[in-house]
Amino acid sequence: MEPESIEKSEPTGWASKAWALLSAVRSQSPLIQCITNFVSMDLMANTLLSAGASPAMIHSIVEIPDFTPHANALYINVGTLSPDWLPAMKAAAELACRTGKPWVLDPVAVGASGFRLRACLELVELKPTVIRGNASEVIALSKASVGPTKGVDSSHESTHAVDAAKSLSKASGAIVAVSGAVDIITDGELVVGAHNGVAMMQRITATGCSVTALIAAFVAVDPSHAFEATASALSVFGIAGEMGMKMANGPASLRMHLIDSLHGLDEADVLSRVNITGYR
Amino acid sequence: MEPESIEKSEPTGWASKAWALLSAVRSQSPLIQCITNFVSMDLMANTLLSAGASPAMIHSIVEIPDFTPHANALYINVGTLSPDWLPAMKAAAELACRTGKPWVLDPVAVGASGFRLRACLELVELKPTVIRGNASEVIALSKASVGPTKGVDSSHESTHAVDAAKSLSKASGAIVAVSGAVDIITDGELVVGAHNGVAMMQRITATGCSVTALIAAFVAVDPSHAFEATASALSVFGIAGEMGMKMANGPASLRMHLIDSLHGLDEADVLSRVNITGYR
Amino acid sequence: MEPESIEKSEPTGWASKAWALLSAVRSQSPLIQCITNFVSMDLMANTLLSAGASPAMIHSIVEIPDFTPHANALYINVGTLSPDWLPAMKAAAELACRTGKPWVLDPVAVGASGFRLRACLELVELKPTVIRGNASEVIALSKASVGPTKGVDSSHESTHAVDAAKSLSKASGAIVAVSGAVDIITDGELVVGAHNGVAMMQRITATGCSVTALIAAFVAVDPSHAFEATASALSVFGIAGEMGMKMANGPASLRMHLIDSLHGLDEADVLSRVNITGYR
Repeated sequence: MEPESIEKSEPTGWASKAWALLSAVRSQSPLIQCITNFVSMDLMANTLLSAGASPAMIHSIVEIPDFTPHANALYINVGTLSPDWLPAMKAAAELACRTGKPWVLDPVAVGASGFRLRACLELVELKPTVIRGNASEVIALSKASVGPTKGVDSSHESTHAVDAAKSLSKASGAIVAVSGAVDIITDGELVVGAHNGVAMMQRITATGCSVTALIAAFVAVDPSHAFEATASALSVFGIAGEMGMKMANGPASLRMHLIDSLHGLDEADVLSRVNITGYR
Repeated sequence: MEPESIEKSEPTGWASKAWALLSAVRSQSPLIQCITNFVSMDLMANTLLSAGASPAMIHSIVEIPDFTPHANALYINVGTLSPDWLPAMKAAAELACRTGKPWVLDPVAVGASGFRLRACLELVELKPTVIRGNASEVIALSKASVGPTKGVDSSHESTHAVDAAKSLSKASGAIVAVSGAVDIITDGELVVGAHNGVAMMQRITATGCSVTALIAAFVAVDPSHAFEATASALSVFGIAGEMGMKMANGPASLRMHLIDSLHGLDEADVLSRVNITGYR
Repeated sequence: MEPESIEKSEPTGWASKAWALLSAVRSQSPLIQCITNFVSMDLMANTLLSAGASPAMIHSIVEIPDFTPHANALYINVGTLSPDWLPAMKAAAELACRTGKPWVLDPVAVGASGFRLRACLELVELKPTVIRGNASEVIALSKASVGPTKGVDSSHESTHAVDAAKSLSKASGAIVAVSGAVDIITDGELVVGAHNGVAMMQRITATGCSVTALIAAFVAVDPSHAFEATASALSVFGIAGEMGMKMANGPASLRMHLIDSLHGLDEADVLSRVNITGYR
């Protein structure tokens, strides 16, 4: 679905919401359990810490009954999935689903193999609160198809995945976010676009994984408004990228300045920069 | 136990000891085998390299008989523990214990689950030379209790863990260090506080894991003075943080400047900044 | 073998080749499957991304039949090897060998244990296109010997491994590269030295792993000239280090500036700096 028209939503509405959520993360420091891939653990933990949240990379199935109940949100990312990690992911998601704890799924490279696709479809059955992927991932998950893939990088534009995202959202009950030049967020009916961020963020590994962790932190502090929390987290992370880009000379310095900026964001930065628009 | 009085110890004593140990690490380049968590491997290896040591992240049980005898110290960290990693940790610790090789335990989030607590208690039986944790971890390990936890972050001040640290030290025979705003180090009787460091280091993932690796390197070059080596390593890492903080704009740039500073520390930096005081 | 004489090769030949290969990586964005160690995944992925390639850290044996055929090159690195990862490495290498896909082996710390040595020898049987190690690793692999080792760091100079490299190249059919102050590259007969780089790169973890990933990307875009691609990748990575060093204050800032520089390298940088000489 191409948007019939794009109109900037009432700025203060989204901007003040985003600021309120970031402030709540900073003051409440929600505990986010991440069962994630090996590549992203470092940047993801630093993203959560710089936003004020408390990360815990605890992945063993034997610890889930004791630990997961204490987490404020759960985040599952299949980037380096193997069969021995999947049971813990399912057990944790099942516990979250059963106890009403928000949880977020990042179906990294879901189209890379039949194993990965089936694993993600099983996880989707456990009612994630939010699913965040790039366009290729959301399309593959929505169509339940394996196909030629660019690994973890998308070969589609996010705006070409709006129909797939709405369909996946309706089928799963999850908020679905498609990141890209414009981040698309939908609850199956409403669709908004978050326009913050810079292109060079795609030249840094694990930025997608890390913004999904930030979504988990935002949802943790306002679980009854997951749509707003998801759009706000994507916008805030993009703003940190925009501000970081002013000081960056390439992807590695951008990575550093992005995290510094996320840590230092103040109300004026957020209020003046949030750029979330409705699709209608 | 609250300190009855805190008095700055003879500065040149601790400062010259710390400088001598750092110099020995640089000149001897001890080989430190790390069986550690996935989150911290990158920063830990870079911490050891910048201090002049030689890290080796070798964790498979099949390699322990061939490799561990060549290491100058062993470091075990349970941050992302799973049942398949525990036997190698125990085999390596047992070999170190049997052959008199110094080894250091970081009981990350020991209170997170019964599995993790039992694993750490089994490791403590294998006579670590040093145990380093935050206050919540040292209290949980000392009391052998699982409980509500803030994941890997502490919900206690280090100075509130002095009794627990002394008790754990007496029971285990290990030097026990509690990191925090003040780092507490005890051999069960003597207690000192290392006052170096900056608060923002707690907003960088794996700084606790990494300073424990530095403790292993310091102990490797002076195994018969593990108390002094532990306090010195904590102080030196804190100094690198203080110097890095002068150039930092947030946690990510602090992480970079901390490592650069650790690499560049000279005698004047160490002699003028070491701040270790006795509790008595 | 010590070189009888060293003569700078025709500069424009190597330099223009290196620039052409980097340009091809940027324009084709080859998909590089990395089955690698936990320590290096972050820097390796960022190295590939900053060079314009597309990394995929997919290591599970169940995904190899679906995913590996789509990769433009395969890279296997045994840095944190364990028995449960080896079958996937062998399956992927076997598939690459059978289908004519280029693949690159990094035998990290091959002399650390009998297990690791046997694993690497089995991988060498699967006809890697390129093998890249430090001098100690190439000597150990060439002699098929386990011995006292400095972990992952070399205790030999690269120029002392020329005979071992030629012998390993002849026995395996692979291009063999020995990194060090001078990087040695041989096809078993021809030997060249790549002189780019700075010493401080050895104080950053995973630079060796990461340059090998860059070799895989260069070979992916010109698989029929693996010798030239290997020498060019080593030279280009070294140039990024040289340029990064001008802005660095220590190993952590060098790591950042190296990646930024790799991303920003232009034709003049490459043409003026490539320093590859023939041994004859």
